[in-house]
Amino acid sequence: MLKYQQIAAELEKYIEENELQQGNKLPVLESLMAQFEVSKSTITKALDLLERKGVVFQVRGSGIFVRRHKRKGYISLLSNQGFKKDLEDFQATSKVIELAVKKPTQKAAENLNIGLDDDIYYVKRVRYINEQTLCFEESYYNKTIIPYLNKEIVSESIFHYISEGLGLKIGFSDLFLHVDKLNEEEAEYLGLEKGDPKFCVESIFHLTNGQPFDFSIVTYNYQQAQFFLQANNQLL
Amino acid sequence: MLKYQQIAAELEKYIEENELQQGNKLPVLESLMAQFEVSKSTITKALDLLERKGVVFQVRGSGIFVRRHKRKGYISLLSNQGFKKDLEDFQATSKVIELAVKKPTQKAAENLNIGLDDDIYYVKRVRYINEQTLCFEESYYNKTIIPYLNKEIVSESIFHYISEGLGLKIGFSDLFLHVDKLNEEEAEYLGLEKGDPKFCVESIFHLTNGQPFDFSIVTYNYQQAQFFLQANNQLL
Repeated sequence: MLKYQQIAAELEKYIEENELQQGNKLPVLESLMAQFEVSKSTITKALDLLERKGVVFQVRGSGIFVRRHKRKGYISLLSNQGFKKDLEDFQATSKVIELAVKKPTQKAAENLNIGLDDDIYYVKRVRYINEQTLCFEESYYNKTIIPYLNKEIVSESIFHYISEGLGLKIGFSDLFLHVDKLNEEEAEYLGLEKGDPKFCVESIFHLTNGQPFDFSIVTYNYQQAQFFLQANNQLL
Repeated sequence: MLKYQQIAAELEKYIEENELQQGNKLPVLESLMAQFEVSKSTITKALDLLERKGVVFQVRGSGIFVRRHKRKGYISLLSNQGFKKDLEDFQATSKVIELAVKKPTQKAAENLNIGLDDDIYYVKRVRYINEQTLCFEESYYNKTIIPYLNKEIVSESIFHYISEGLGLKIGFSDLFLHVDKLNEEEAEYLGLEKGDPKFCVESIFHLTNGQPFDFSIVTYNYQQAQFFLQANNQLL
């Protein structure tokens, strides 16, 4: 972690621990420079990172303000995507239904950019949050990149294993969201009725070198899963 | 628009027009510097912006590559949020059901950070895409910030009017997504059945100074609306 990233993390922690609210003003640049004993450019980079993350907003000539519009019970659409180890504020567990080396489906092969004869690890899990069924999840891992998985690993955080155990660097992901009706199997896993709404998120995760390594299809229990996302005009 | 933003826009256009695919390599920094006749720092800023937008990814020591995993028929969850004028690739129209100055609902007042006695512009629209019902939309605009709206404005792009007509700067937005079942009124607007799945996106839009000016509740036709989102490990 670079210095400016460390400072950004500390500032974020400070905002959380002190429960600062949207619109609360942060100390001026000079105070932050003195507090962290770093240059102006390092503080500026830390604040830019926090702005991109949606933690603060900067008003020219006026200061830096806390941006915080989380709603209780809403899951971050991005931090849920395996980048963070856990779902914030939630007690999350999971049950492994299936773990096997297989050939990919047509769809998985396309999204992982591999052939139909290549091996993948197929993982099917049900995830629980506060002891309710949150979602069920089918994942396809390119076995050339993730050569080994076992039940213990997939019961916990696969992404933690990938980054810490295998030393791979996770770069970016593409998410596709759609809503449909649950079929019988899906309804059973989620404890809902066939025909009930289904909230489906497909994700493709890439290493920093651009290689896709994980294609996942997650079906959420619509009664449990609500998401938030912070957007920034700068980026658009 | 600053120089580096212009260059970023040109590079993005170049990628689109030439239909470059994920993994295609862009020219090296030196070529881009020569082509645009700007300094290394300007090109670097342009590329950083494109990386944050999910248009390219940079691999240390290896180059800059196109990132492009759009799926046909999927709407960008972010560019749909009023920042861009139109839905890419789609023929979008809208019909105004109601436009009136009113008092806010409790929920709208909370999200706009105003009192229950303050005035808001209430706008109810149905939006169509390729001649199908895409969504219906209820918006609450803080009248202190948006003092005037008429039917012509709300039939077209309200955000275009806000930025061009009123000269206001749109800063950031918070999105909340959930799925539920349609009630009778919603089903009627969307041409679906009561009890069918409903994909609901609530958004709060803020000016660059942090003031919320628009709270919108959009109910999508699940058969028409599919979304994508590009995420970046950097930001998390």
